[in-house]
Amino acid sequence: MSFWDKYSHTTKLHDSYVCVGLDSDIAKLPGLLEFEQNPILKFNEEIVRATRNKVACYKLNLAFYLAAGKTGYEALERTLGVMPSYIPVILDCKVGDIGNTMSAYAKAFLKEMPFDAITVNPLMGGDVLDPLAGFDQAMKFVLTLTSNPSSKDFLLRNNLYLDIAKWLEKRGHEQWGAVVGATNPKAIRSVRWILPKSLFLIPGVGVQGGDLEQVVQYATASAESPCFLVNSSRGIIFASRGDDFAEAALNATEDLRLAINNILDS
Amino acid sequence: MSFWDKYSHTTKLHDSYVCVGLDSDIAKLPGLLEFEQNPILKFNEEIVRATRNKVACYKLNLAFYLAAGKTGYEALERTLGVMPSYIPVILDCKVGDIGNTMSAYAKAFLKEMPFDAITVNPLMGGDVLDPLAGFDQAMKFVLTLTSNPSSKDFLLRNNLYLDIAKWLEKRGHEQWGAVVGATNPKAIRSVRWILPKSLFLIPGVGVQGGDLEQVVQYATASAESPCFLVNSSRGIIFASRGDDFAEAALNATEDLRLAINNILDS
Repeated sequence: MSFWDKYSHTTKLHDSYVCVGLDSDIAKLPGLLEFEQNPILKFNEEIVRATRNKVACYKLNLAFYLAAGKTGYEALERTLGVMPSYIPVILDCKVGDIGNTMSAYAKAFLKEMPFDAITVNPLMGGDVLDPLAGFDQAMKFVLTLTSNPSSKDFLLRNNLYLDIAKWLEKRGHEQWGAVVGATNPKAIRSVRWILPKSLFLIPGVGVQGGDLEQVVQYATASAESPCFLVNSSRGIIFASRGDDFAEAALNATEDLRLAINNILDS
Repeated sequence: MSFWDKYSHTTKLHDSYVCVGLDSDIAKLPGLLEFEQNPILKFNEEIVRATRNKVACYKLNLAFYLAAGKTGYEALERTLGVMPSYIPVILDCKVGDIGNTMSAYAKAFLKEMPFDAITVNPLMGGDVLDPLAGFDQAMKFVLTLTSNPSSKDFLLRNNLYLDIAKWLEKRGHEQWGAVVGATNPKAIRSVRWILPKSLFLIPGVGVQGGDLEQVVQYATASAESPCFLVNSSRGIIFASRGDDFAEAALNATEDLRLAINNILDS
């Protein structure tokens, strides 16, 4: 199944546009997992078990896995195995290289570890995307406008983010999504205008403070298919750092799911 | 020892500005390594043993290690152990993320695996660099102008590469180097003008066809300290795919070393 197929399925089945970000920083895990053989894997298992019926998607952030050495690498690999096969899983790796190097990343993240989607940094231009085109079942979310304050340094300067969006538009929406940060809702509107059918991966609600109502309004592609995923990571997985972490994650997921749906319905 | 200290030491000791890129793609290794317990590690050991007295630096490209699964991950970790401690080693990972994610990459690549330097993608702005500033012994090579044809899509458009260079200049040269591709020598001259003392990591000679003479002329910071590293990957490590691969790598390294030095001396 392609990313699009899985996305269409879970968003309907769970009535959810929530992407739960498994930024499972080993230093922040609940104390009761300390003596597990692989605390990160166990944490992810518990979070997935609690939230799986309320999500559209999961996203793993490569950095937190590599930072935990062999334990993290094993957790990255094995977390894919605990996911229900119909839920799409994104690897947030923000890779951006060329030619044979990019082919090697694609092999690593879309084949050896069969993620359904990756995030991509487009700075080096079209040579970054070309080696990925053959992986046509996978969604590639291209950084277009990020949610951090210093996105003004380059992405907002000379409207680089709009150049990226126009450049993406030429490639079509089947394989290429856009990462569009929640902290700049008016920019989301501009990007949606350029990319009317593309899937948006939207970080920056929750801890980073994006305005959910505006974000949902401006990001929605159409009433039938909004074509977005709202990601929350720390706000969900670390909603509680105590023994009730999984239940707290479920509650935070459900709160976000309902908040999005209320805006969509209004 | 900091990256700068190691760089100053090896460039003098070996009279070399050559960076050997260990893009050790498992699919391309010489046949005689097939039955090794870890063919990538063995390949790197042999290449390092052959070339160690002729190099300024080594560079490992993360993609090729992750593409080989557990074998690659182990090779990445253990290759650091076979390096002479006085030779600086760069991880070419082109990471570019923010806040706690970037801190996790720094932990992964500058602490858990103690590389002397990493490459960084600056698209998301200053928030990418801030978490790295505490790792003051490490060099962070920031993508400024890459050597691939589609660098025209964004980096050359509106002179984004010059904006990146000016932005780097404000941070000082001690911790921040620049990746400047060999395929556009006149642009190297412009970047050197903005960053007179920064260390340049220059890919794109050899297979990608950059003009070495112009590159060296324009990249040289001063006669006492040229402040650059010319990287060659496939042109050296895959100079021969037969049993004589290590000797061929030595010869290719020596050819490049002498070619650079001849231009510097002329």
